[in-house]
Amino acid sequence: MEEVVTRAIQDDYPDDFAWCYGCGRLNESGHHIRTGWQGENTVTIFEPKPEHMALPGFVYGGLIASLIDCHGTGSAALALHRKNGHEPGDGSEPPRFVTASLHVDFLKPTPHGVPLKAIGTVEEIHPKRWKVNAEVYANDTLCARGEVVAVVMPNTFVRKDE
Amino acid sequence: MEEVVTRAIQDDYPDDFAWCYGCGRLNESGHHIRTGWQGENTVTIFEPKPEHMALPGFVYGGLIASLIDCHGTGSAALALHRKNGHEPGDGSEPPRFVTASLHVDFLKPTPHGVPLKAIGTVEEIHPKRWKVNAEVYANDTLCARGEVVAVVMPNTFVRKDE
Repeated sequence: MEEVVTRAIQDDYPDDFAWCYGCGRLNESGHHIRTGWQGENTVTIFEPKPEHMALPGFVYGGLIASLIDCHGTGSAALALHRKNGHEPGDGSEPPRFVTASLHVDFLKPTPHGVPLKAIGTVEEIHPKRWKVNAEVYANDTLCARGEVVAVVMPNTFVRKDE
Repeated sequence: MEEVVTRAIQDDYPDDFAWCYGCGRLNESGHHIRTGWQGENTVTIFEPKPEHMALPGFVYGGLIASLIDCHGTGSAALALHRKNGHEPGDGSEPPRFVTASLHVDFLKPTPHGVPLKAIGTVEEIHPKRWKVNAEVYANDTLCARGEVVAVVMPNTFVRKDE
């Protein structure tokens, strides 16, 4: 049975913050990465497109980095939202995080043509700064491990033309 | 005057290894990232597409990670190729690297709509394992700093169906 994320934090981002190429639901050309809770862990399931290859048969590392990036900001948003007493789908706007740093260790070549699953554990290191550790699996094989430090979006993320 | 990379290592990758979504010249849907020498440094110039946004006005971090990733493998290939007595365009096939680890520190929101420039410094830490430090500039502003550990492509990168 195919696993799906039924309630994702990205579904609830305010429209103004839903344009991310990785995870914005309003970006028509984007990846539409979606992240939800699975018990105390966060989970993202994403199947790369045929062109997202490193070599034929293997997933492009930059796409795995993108998956971990948006899984990280989404996981941090889930965690702070829960700390504030909210869950995805409850009608309240979640916080929006950006990435301060991203680290990926590529452990094994990642096979193409199967859904990838990122599992996250989230840790608060400051009220506005959260760390997310992620493991990326393909067919139950651990292929990459990542760490994201995510911060609540600062005011510097305002369009210069506004 | 717009800067361009005239001789890129990716132009010389063997056809079988030129399919990367980030930097493969044969991947029609890919980014076509190209990396060349600039004195003792390596350089990649890449302009994100309109959809590659985090928010309107700012570049998606996963794309910056992808730029650093392919800039890293390309820089390592340039350096080992030069160590072997070759330069891009001299008719010899360069080595092909894959990424072992990728780290990105996002220093400032990266403005959209201008070419990004990655500048690399390459260090041999083992004959088959090279470290690339990268700085990513937009309009001469340092927006991100990255580190890639790249290794000569192992035999595990062979299609399972072959």
